[in-house]
Amino acid sequence: MIDAAIQALARGEFVLLYDFDNRERETDFAIRSDAVTPAHIRQMRKDGGGLICTAVHPEAAKRLGLPFAHDVLRACSLVEKDGEVPYDPKNHSSFSLWVNHRETYTGVTDRDRALTVTAIADEVRKSLNGGGYDFAAHFRTPGHMALLRAADRLLDDRRGQTELSIALAAMADITPAVTICEMLDDETGLALQKEDAMEYAKKHGLVFIEGKDVLNRWQSQRLKE
Amino acid sequence: MIDAAIQALARGEFVLLYDFDNRERETDFAIRSDAVTPAHIRQMRKDGGGLICTAVHPEAAKRLGLPFAHDVLRACSLVEKDGEVPYDPKNHSSFSLWVNHRETYTGVTDRDRALTVTAIADEVRKSLNGGGYDFAAHFRTPGHMALLRAADRLLDDRRGQTELSIALAAMADITPAVTICEMLDDETGLALQKEDAMEYAKKHGLVFIEGKDVLNRWQSQRLKE
Repeated sequence: MIDAAIQALARGEFVLLYDFDNRERETDFAIRSDAVTPAHIRQMRKDGGGLICTAVHPEAAKRLGLPFAHDVLRACSLVEKDGEVPYDPKNHSSFSLWVNHRETYTGVTDRDRALTVTAIADEVRKSLNGGGYDFAAHFRTPGHMALLRAADRLLDDRRGQTELSIALAAMADITPAVTICEMLDDETGLALQKEDAMEYAKKHGLVFIEGKDVLNRWQSQRLKE
Repeated sequence: MIDAAIQALARGEFVLLYDFDNRERETDFAIRSDAVTPAHIRQMRKDGGGLICTAVHPEAAKRLGLPFAHDVLRACSLVEKDGEVPYDPKNHSSFSLWVNHRETYTGVTDRDRALTVTAIADEVRKSLNGGGYDFAAHFRTPGHMALLRAADRLLDDRRGQTELSIALAAMADITPAVTICEMLDDETGLALQKEDAMEYAKKHGLVFIEGKDVLNRWQSQRLKE
């Protein structure tokens, strides 16, 4: 299943990524950011319903100057208590900046968000290739696309959808910028149940993968190193 | 029409709020925040599709310590250029902090966002009544609900959905915290056209109102003062 997920991600298809039974218990749409079209944004907002965010590899985040929102708010003395989250008390949230590409209009339409997302992937790719990137020249902040910064040592540090999706991108050897969106349930007002997300995957011919499978591959690759 | 909009807002119904033909040309769902239920969040994300945000009166924002994101980012030297927006070059965006109520779990589900929104309204009300509020005690940041801070002199300073909705709340004499969400078009990838938003309003028995009507009432009230 993990190989099917890696291949689907590489092909630019949605992968449905569930985290863990003892964490958020949430399934996210996940797609490589350089493949995102307005139709993908529409499908995420209509069938997912959560926030559409782009997760970025920590090395690219550092090079592009993308901080944790948590650190910005603390530096400005706007967070008195730590930004702890109830499902993961050791870590803070992975939110970084909210941005719009400078060529967007309002920034929120499907076309605008797709433009912002693909341009983020472009900057991430260029930053990791070592040159020619300038984040501030291409993006305004605040904006309508949330950037998420993965933890430094990825799944060794934190096991959120942010790290899971970037670890998958690393396994697929693609530009490590992955756009994700939580799947919500329309009736209960809660997250979509795992079984219902699996049903959606089946219906739409998508790969459903769990965090434990990503983590197993991650740890077995670590052992080989 | 303006009276119908004020009354609908006061009753806790959605109002469809279009801004101006020469600005964003966008229609937002708008509802008083203290009336928001999980079903309202669901309707906004399914039928609107933009970001679900809560606009707050400038006086309450000051008392609760809610800054403009723009100012936070500048203070931290994270915004090199001004946070200018293409449809309104004189002003920056109205984004403030992104928050979750401390009793939420992930913060993104319909139930969680409804809890956050109604609790924001509660703090806004208490802050304007002069006592007993403590924003940081009740909310984590960063989170999944965007706060928008209306400009100091509302429509005299800026004419976005943020100021239009808070001006409407002032006219309705309700707690000035209004939750809004952009209506997107599912086919074009752009904002929903005004005519299509009017059609949605008709179909769902909602009041559709334009910024120019809110502004007319605003200016005629100003003349009387």
